[in-house]
Amino acid sequence: MPGQEVNVKAHFADTLITRIRSLGHPLCAGLDPHLGRIPPLFQQGSMAPADPATAEGVHDFFRAYLPRLQGKVAVVKPQSAFFEQLGWRGARVLSEVCAQARELGLIVVLDAKRGDIGSTAAAYAQYLAAAGAWAADALTVNPYLGTDTLAPFADAAAADDAGIFVLVKTSNPGSGDYQDRLVDGVPLYELVAGSLAPMVERLRGPQTGWSSLDVVVGATYPEQALAIRGLLPQALFLIPGYGAQGGTAADAVASFVKGPAGLEGGIVNSSRGVLFPDGSNCNDAATWEQAIDAALDRAIDELGTAVAT
Amino acid sequence: MPGQEVNVKAHFADTLITRIRSLGHPLCAGLDPHLGRIPPLFQQGSMAPADPATAEGVHDFFRAYLPRLQGKVAVVKPQSAFFEQLGWRGARVLSEVCAQARELGLIVVLDAKRGDIGSTAAAYAQYLAAAGAWAADALTVNPYLGTDTLAPFADAAAADDAGIFVLVKTSNPGSGDYQDRLVDGVPLYELVAGSLAPMVERLRGPQTGWSSLDVVVGATYPEQALAIRGLLPQALFLIPGYGAQGGTAADAVASFVKGPAGLEGGIVNSSRGVLFPDGSNCNDAATWEQAIDAALDRAIDELGTAVAT
Repeated sequence: MPGQEVNVKAHFADTLITRIRSLGHPLCAGLDPHLGRIPPLFQQGSMAPADPATAEGVHDFFRAYLPRLQGKVAVVKPQSAFFEQLGWRGARVLSEVCAQARELGLIVVLDAKRGDIGSTAAAYAQYLAAAGAWAADALTVNPYLGTDTLAPFADAAAADDAGIFVLVKTSNPGSGDYQDRLVDGVPLYELVAGSLAPMVERLRGPQTGWSSLDVVVGATYPEQALAIRGLLPQALFLIPGYGAQGGTAADAVASFVKGPAGLEGGIVNSSRGVLFPDGSNCNDAATWEQAIDAALDRAIDELGTAVAT
Repeated sequence: MPGQEVNVKAHFADTLITRIRSLGHPLCAGLDPHLGRIPPLFQQGSMAPADPATAEGVHDFFRAYLPRLQGKVAVVKPQSAFFEQLGWRGARVLSEVCAQARELGLIVVLDAKRGDIGSTAAAYAQYLAAAGAWAADALTVNPYLGTDTLAPFADAAAADDAGIFVLVKTSNPGSGDYQDRLVDGVPLYELVAGSLAPMVERLRGPQTGWSSLDVVVGATYPEQALAIRGLLPQALFLIPGYGAQGGTAADAVASFVKGPAGLEGGIVNSSRGVLFPDGSNCNDAATWEQAIDAALDRAIDELGTAVAT
C-alpha cells in the first residue's frame, strides 16, 4: 500500500538455510579488513588507523570484493573491530559495506560481540531493527552478563526476523580459561548452551525448523561442538577458526546433521583465507580478481565436499 | 624536540586517583543518551534512531551538558550503545563527545564492553591508542573469551598509559546466571578476578600504587565487592548501579580503602540520576542548567560524605 512500509523480510534461519541448500555449501565470507593486508591496489593515505584516508581505502577494497561473492556465498560476516579502529569514518564504511552486501543478495551477520544490561542491551539490539540505522541481519553477542541481558536481543530478533549468535565456545586457545571450567560437573559452555534452549525454541522457523537464536562454536573444538549440538539440536552454529586458525573442513562441520541437500546446521567462516589469499597482495585488478575467485572456489569446493552425503 | 611526538599522558590510575583526591568524591558521570529522555530543549528531528537529525540533537545535548561537569567531576563514562544505535552519525557524535570531554579536563572511560580474540582484540585496543582515531582514556572489556583475549588490551594500556575495566560482577539481577556459579567451590566472578592479578600488578602506578588494570563490580553487590577487593587490592573498581538501579552510596563504596584524602579505590557511576534529573525535561536553558547543577551537587555531596573518614 502506498505510504505504508511493509516488512518483507522472511525468518532469518529459514532464509539462511534455504540459501545454503541451494548453493550447496555453508561458507561464510569474513570481512576483516586487517590494515596491513589491504592490497596496494586499494591502499589510500598511510593506512594508519587515524588517517582519514584509510577508511576510503578500506571502502574501495570492499566495493571491489563484495561483487566477487554475489551468487557464490550466502552470507558475509563483517568484523566490527577492524572498522571501529578507524573511528567514526570506519563506522560509516561498515554501514555502507553492510548495505552493499544486502543489495547484492548477501545475508549480513555483524560480528560485534555486544553485550550489556537492560536498556543498554536494547540499544545494542537496534543493530537488528528493520527500521533502524544499520543494515545487519544478525549480530554476535556475549553471554557473560546473564540470560536477562540476552532477552532484548531475542525480542529484537523475533520482532524483525533477525538472527542472534551467542558466544558459547570460542576458537582461541584461551577459551578454556573460563568456558571449560566445570559447574556442577558440566563445563560452563554447556551451561550457557543449555540455558539458551527456551530462546532457541521460541525463534524456530516455520519452514525449516532451524532457529534464529544461534551460537558461536569454534571449528577448533569439534568434540565440544557435538556436545553443544546435543543440547541445542535446532540452533545454527557460526563456526570460526576454519582455515587460518587450524580447523579442518571436517572439524568445522562436526556438528552438522543430515538435511535435504547434504549436511547442514550452520555457517563456516573463513576470513583471511578468502579475503587475503596468496597472490592477491598486488597492484593489478585482473590478477587480484583471479586470486580472490580461485581462493573462493577452493573454500567452496572443500566445504561443499565436507557437507555432501 | 621539534618534529618528535612525545606522549605527555601520565599513568591512568595515578591521574584518576590524584584528581579524585583533589575533588573529594568518586562520582563518574555516565553519558547514556536515552533518546526518549533528551529534553525538548535539545531535540532535533523525530529523535528516532534512523533519523539523521537525531545525532545532532544528542550532540547539542552533550555540548551543553559537558561544561556543567568541568571542575566538578574527574571522569565521564560514555555508554557506546546509545551512540551506536544512531549508526555512523552516532559514532561521530561519540567521538566528538570524547574529544570535548578531554578538552574540558575530564577523564574518559568508554563503556563499550568489547572483547574478541587475537588480532581482533588488538583492533579493539586501538580505542586506547594515543595516536589512534579515538580519544578514550580507558575502555570496559568482557572476559568471557579468556585471559589471552585480555592481553592485547593490557598491552595497549601499558604502551599508552590507558586504563582497562574488566567486567567481573555486573549490577543486573541476572548477573548470577553464570558469574555466581561455583567452579571448584569459588564463584566464577572470583575466578575471573583472581586470574587478573598478574596484569593488575604489571600496571600499577608509580605514584599511588593503584593499577590501570581495573574491574567492573556493581554497587548492587557490596558483599561480592569486598571479596573481589581481597583478591585485587590494587585494582580500581568501576561501580555502576548507584542510584537508579538501587545501590546506595554506602553500598557503592563498600570496597574502598583508607587513602590520604578519605576512602578511595574506584569510581561510582551515576547516569540517569545526574543526566536526566527531575525538572530537567524542559525547554528552557536556565531551568535545565539549574536542574543539572542541583542533581550533580546532590550526588557529589552524597558520595563525598560516604568517602569522608
